[in-house]
Amino acid sequence: MAEANIEPEETLTDEMREEAAALIEAEDALGLVALVEPLHASDVADLLGRLSPDERSAFVRLLGADFDFAVLTELEEPVRLQILSELDPKAVADGLADLDSDDAVYILEDLDEAQSEAILAQLPFAMRHRLKRSLDFPEESAGRRMQTDFVAMPPFWTVGQVIDTLREEEDLPDEFTEIFVVDAAFRLLGTVKLNHLLRTRRPVKITDIMDAEPRTIRADEDQEEAARLFQRYDLLSAAVVDEGDRLVGILTIDDIVDVIEAEADEDIRALAGAGDAELSDTPWYVARTRIPWLMINMGTAFLASGVIALFDDTIAAMVALAILMPVVTALGGNAGIQAMTVTVRAISQRQITKRNLIRVVGREVVVALMNGGAVAIAVGFAAGVAFGNVQLGLVIATAIVFNILCAGFFGTTMPMLLDRVGIDPAVASSVFLTTLTDVIGFFAFLALAKWWFGLA
Amino acid sequence: MAEANIEPEETLTDEMREEAAALIEAEDALGLVALVEPLHASDVADLLGRLSPDERSAFVRLLGADFDFAVLTELEEPVRLQILSELDPKAVADGLADLDSDDAVYILEDLDEAQSEAILAQLPFAMRHRLKRSLDFPEESAGRRMQTDFVAMPPFWTVGQVIDTLREEEDLPDEFTEIFVVDAAFRLLGTVKLNHLLRTRRPVKITDIMDAEPRTIRADEDQEEAARLFQRYDLLSAAVVDEGDRLVGILTIDDIVDVIEAEADEDIRALAGAGDAELSDTPWYVARTRIPWLMINMGTAFLASGVIALFDDTIAAMVALAILMPVVTALGGNAGIQAMTVTVRAISQRQITKRNLIRVVGREVVVALMNGGAVAIAVGFAAGVAFGNVQLGLVIATAIVFNILCAGFFGTTMPMLLDRVGIDPAVASSVFLTTLTDVIGFFAFLALAKWWFGLA
Repeated sequence: MAEANIEPEETLTDEMREEAAALIEAEDALGLVALVEPLHASDVADLLGRLSPDERSAFVRLLGADFDFAVLTELEEPVRLQILSELDPKAVADGLADLDSDDAVYILEDLDEAQSEAILAQLPFAMRHRLKRSLDFPEESAGRRMQTDFVAMPPFWTVGQVIDTLREEEDLPDEFTEIFVVDAAFRLLGTVKLNHLLRTRRPVKITDIMDAEPRTIRADEDQEEAARLFQRYDLLSAAVVDEGDRLVGILTIDDIVDVIEAEADEDIRALAGAGDAELSDTPWYVARTRIPWLMINMGTAFLASGVIALFDDTIAAMVALAILMPVVTALGGNAGIQAMTVTVRAISQRQITKRNLIRVVGREVVVALMNGGAVAIAVGFAAGVAFGNVQLGLVIATAIVFNILCAGFFGTTMPMLLDRVGIDPAVASSVFLTTLTDVIGFFAFLALAKWWFGLA
Repeated sequence: MAEANIEPEETLTDEMREEAAALIEAEDALGLVALVEPLHASDVADLLGRLSPDERSAFVRLLGADFDFAVLTELEEPVRLQILSELDPKAVADGLADLDSDDAVYILEDLDEAQSEAILAQLPFAMRHRLKRSLDFPEESAGRRMQTDFVAMPPFWTVGQVIDTLREEEDLPDEFTEIFVVDAAFRLLGTVKLNHLLRTRRPVKITDIMDAEPRTIRADEDQEEAARLFQRYDLLSAAVVDEGDRLVGILTIDDIVDVIEAEADEDIRALAGAGDAELSDTPWYVARTRIPWLMINMGTAFLASGVIALFDDTIAAMVALAILMPVVTALGGNAGIQAMTVTVRAISQRQITKRNLIRVVGREVVVALMNGGAVAIAVGFAAGVAFGNVQLGLVIATAIVFNILCAGFFGTTMPMLLDRVGIDPAVASSVFLTTLTDVIGFFAFLALAKWWFGLA
């Protein structure tokens, strides 16, 4: 267990890293090709990520035409951009020409306009045209993620004709799991999964075995929507169509897996205000992505301070209040974030509907009453004993129940509200929620104490 | 955007819900079958999730043998368990017999021993044997998730023989994307993807086109490891083998997608101490999953109170300290959680290695110095102005830089340390980290102020 985060292939790659570094040092291009050739693109990317920036440039230069551009799609963005910036547009264009169109688009979309134009200009016409069409779709849309290489067949063919064509055709995608049946205008009529094709006798017409109502995705739809469709219906691939229902590309599950992972990651980071930086980004970049939330948090913290300042005489008269007040706010913040996290995920996964909304909020309020009550009794007892003051125990217990109740209510409704007005509920919620529970907690506790004990 | 969380199929299902409720009310079994028949299992599950518990029971009872048990795999656990508890073992066994083995295992594994034994006893021998073998593997292992229906062929066959067999064989899995080549002892020799089979002429031997070094997964390996393999190498399915390298089942990407989503969800919930409750769980259950962290948080909050109590005379002498101290701890907590979230995700995704460990921690420290410095200047200035006390501004600024620095350091090292000793870094980290930043923040600020101003 202690070694849980060290994988077998990692040890392998560590040795390989030494070997690669030595070969680069010796400028041994042939040796490097021999080392890299048997590796999967993901493993080469892993290796490349472990080299220093200088070694990386030398690595790509030494490999020359033997460098597989698919490796770039597996690298973190900063590393990818570094490598691309050192290659001339012609070399990049040659490398991209061997890739599936979705991988080529993935590499091009992060480059600046001028750089990507220069590369596109070097590509053969047909490929340039296809890539440009993908790039014209909005970021994070199905059209951006789709692959434009697929197998389409006319509806009047038989299983035998399809198989014969597949055997003769040279220019097929590297891998595919279904074929698409289209009419003369390239409108999608249906899909045939390969295992159905293989089970069927040659004379049968493909329209007899096709799924005539396949799930399709509009090219301008968000990739998140596409991911949800894949998850819901366990799809391996799906047709991407334009406004006229014409087949323009396909989405495959491997791209969708990346989307699902990225979306979950976005939720987690947004909840913590942690920015989108990757491990390979510079401290300067990381700091910039995180400072906005710290600055906002500073403002909201001052708000909470303002509430305390209202009761400065009360605190001067009874310092125990200053000692205990962080307990009230810590518990409120914690309970609020529990409720909020569950709500944000439920929204992300589209589990909240108009029908269950009231029930979800109601449930959180009930949970808050139960847990708030339990915690309040414990804290009240401890505080009463510690300060030898039963009434102080009662006051803090009351403040805690009230604060946790508010935390449960706002922890649920605030993300829903943000979602309604079109703001990502994960971003923003956590800092604002803890401010709210701080303000309510400090105020409830100090005001109640002031009134109860008749303080200044 | 305002309606972003209302999907088209949801509106559809709302109408359908009314219709289903009316049919259930009227005990119209035929009408219900007609309503449900064209729907995908996921959509039926969605519909079922929207019905009341009583309606659900009636729904399943009315459908009888027409109820597709695949629906159960798409339901939240509490709803699934409710339905299963109302069916007799024979009915469940009949329903399971139509499912893929992985789906049947998924349904059985959450039942208690007695219930699942009673159901297994009603199953045909071969299926019972296969399901028991899967259930004998540890929870969340590849063996639990695998499907035991797959297509295996001997190595001496040709493409033509394989295709002929597929056309004649009745008992094939519903869907498959590759076939497995095994020797007489069922040891895995290689895999052939269906598209390669379709491109190849009949006389070619399958050993000539098979991938002789396919990625395999040991049945006792964790599902998370399997998910990582699928993601890294873009797999659609992979063979699951036992200690003797014998093929015992296959994992498919649709199961892996669920694993990826579940693992990300676990991280998010663990970070917030939010438990594993689902939207359909009872308040009582939800409260129980969350109370442990609130109780721990109570203990840690008292720890922070203890630190403040050390300085009660200092606060009595200068109430401004009580007003400002939450600013120091709020910023430290926020910066710490930013660093921690990034680290927890990097650990989950196996991005932290022995080599980059120092660099990752170092980067967080640099980020903390930059952001801590920026925030400290702003807070110091504001506090100095607000209280007309430049020295107080200097004291709080110093405390903030120090606290954020510690937050960055511990936010990175604490999850790494927990991972090293075999504790899930996402659980536990956040409450302990904020306690640490509270303790350090209160102490640094109050002690520094006491010393600087020469207070009691």
